[in-house]
Amino acid sequence: LRIAVVGSGAIGCYYGGKLVASGCDVHFLMRGDLPEVRRAGLRISGPGEDIHLPNIHCYGSTKEIGPCDVVLVAVKTTSNHDLPELLAPLVNARTMIVTLQNGLGNEEFLAEHFGAERIAAALCFIGVRRAEPGTIIRDEHGQIILGEYRRKPEDRTHLVAAAFREAGVNCRVTENLSLERWRKLVWNIPFNGLSVAAGGVDTATILADPALFKATEALMHEVIAAANKCGLPLEDSIANEQLRLTKTIGAYKPSTLLDFEAGNPLELEAIWGEPLRRAKAAGAEVPRLEELYSMLKSLDEQRVLNH
Amino acid sequence: LRIAVVGSGAIGCYYGGKLVASGCDVHFLMRGDLPEVRRAGLRISGPGEDIHLPNIHCYGSTKEIGPCDVVLVAVKTTSNHDLPELLAPLVNARTMIVTLQNGLGNEEFLAEHFGAERIAAALCFIGVRRAEPGTIIRDEHGQIILGEYRRKPEDRTHLVAAAFREAGVNCRVTENLSLERWRKLVWNIPFNGLSVAAGGVDTATILADPALFKATEALMHEVIAAANKCGLPLEDSIANEQLRLTKTIGAYKPSTLLDFEAGNPLELEAIWGEPLRRAKAAGAEVPRLEELYSMLKSLDEQRVLNH
Repeated sequence: LRIAVVGSGAIGCYYGGKLVASGCDVHFLMRGDLPEVRRAGLRISGPGEDIHLPNIHCYGSTKEIGPCDVVLVAVKTTSNHDLPELLAPLVNARTMIVTLQNGLGNEEFLAEHFGAERIAAALCFIGVRRAEPGTIIRDEHGQIILGEYRRKPEDRTHLVAAAFREAGVNCRVTENLSLERWRKLVWNIPFNGLSVAAGGVDTATILADPALFKATEALMHEVIAAANKCGLPLEDSIANEQLRLTKTIGAYKPSTLLDFEAGNPLELEAIWGEPLRRAKAAGAEVPRLEELYSMLKSLDEQRVLNH
Repeated sequence: LRIAVVGSGAIGCYYGGKLVASGCDVHFLMRGDLPEVRRAGLRISGPGEDIHLPNIHCYGSTKEIGPCDVVLVAVKTTSNHDLPELLAPLVNARTMIVTLQNGLGNEEFLAEHFGAERIAAALCFIGVRRAEPGTIIRDEHGQIILGEYRRKPEDRTHLVAAAFREAGVNCRVTENLSLERWRKLVWNIPFNGLSVAAGGVDTATILADPALFKATEALMHEVIAAANKCGLPLEDSIANEQLRLTKTIGAYKPSTLLDFEAGNPLELEAIWGEPLRRAKAAGAEVPRLEELYSMLKSLDEQRVLNH
């Protein structure tokens, strides 16, 4: 399997690096970190792992990479508009494009430009950050749920899942990608959103503050109800499950808070805007999600204006 | 009428100063601005007015003022806990206490400490700010709605209203203070709240941003429905009326945004917390208000923690 990783932030470098370490043929598109990774390689550390990859294949353009069997898309969703041009040189007749991105709308966007039959998605349940150029730290978990876009799993799905597993990544194949997308949003919508909208707070602060805890719970139940309206059977009990699991990870900063602190644009449409639009189109009542989206949108815009 | 003004921020100085200019016997409790006002007097400017009051009665403690006929309470609601001690020297058997403060709960608090029969409230519809010590700038409006606490207007109510009118302040007496309180909240809850929660935005920005405009409208309708559940007949049409009027005032910063920018505590409980509790006790559905309250509360707390 010739694999390309497009977008070499924390997520792309982590999963790409794990695949390299297990012997896969991986080619990274890099931007800012390219000189440092060429000089000193890629380092990944986390609970139970400490990997140094002194020589990885990394490039400044996808033209240098050329066609691949699998393209892992790990750019922020706010850069999706660059993908048609960026991915074109990587794609031949049988290339599979796997988005590792957050939220809703990414498969649809890629399908529109490259054909629905190519598209799959890997939902990444991981706490990971880039400590410095070429150095990735995994704090939490790392499992992947892999699914085909609007299709049952295929042979290639299991092949990619096997590659992840051989690389030490816990990977499950799902029959219903949309269901898993919404299940993940039950967590991302409140925690990623409130972490920024409530003034820069981590998961421990959200759980410890009675008003924010209630806001989180209420948002979770809105998202679950919206998923059900969209025909995806999520049970109410997953709110409590996710809250309980979140208590075990300590003071964790959701990726949106890291984006906000770094001055990067927020993944507004993928995590809040598109779910909101789909919920409303399905007739769900989502006042809390709507208000959260408005505030995050304004916070994002104000920040752009102030820089 | 011997009048005390307790809390000499923009609101206290503006209305107190107008009363002085019309010949009333007004005594100001001042803190930080006392030396400057003693030295250079009080200046008030605004559309159609430019007042300099070189000698006003101002003091560093209410003991120096002693009993008055009318006490105008103009401290921020976040300082209410200081009022029992602060007001005691001003109060004799027939003193009327008029709160000029925002939100819900102030009359109740004062009634608990000084007796319900003393308490009245003046709702201030004004855009006013303290440009520097002793200098007050009025940007917008200035009218007052005056009402007794849980009673019809009395002779004294009309006497105080007449004093305001003689001072050039448009003043209306209401039969139903609670109704007017909620009517004012229909504006303050969304505009004051979103101005801070959406990242520091003025009224013009809120109106121009489609998502924030929708959030404002939705909050207004929630507050109107909550008022109705509380037995106060507010019509849905006031949302549109208020939105239309707000368009005419340009880029106005609500007091909560000024508080936030100055690093002062937010009037969280008076404007959002107490209305939320009353709405829920009356069985109203207020998910947007609840979420806004949670976020403002967290923003307020985070700021305290970071200073």
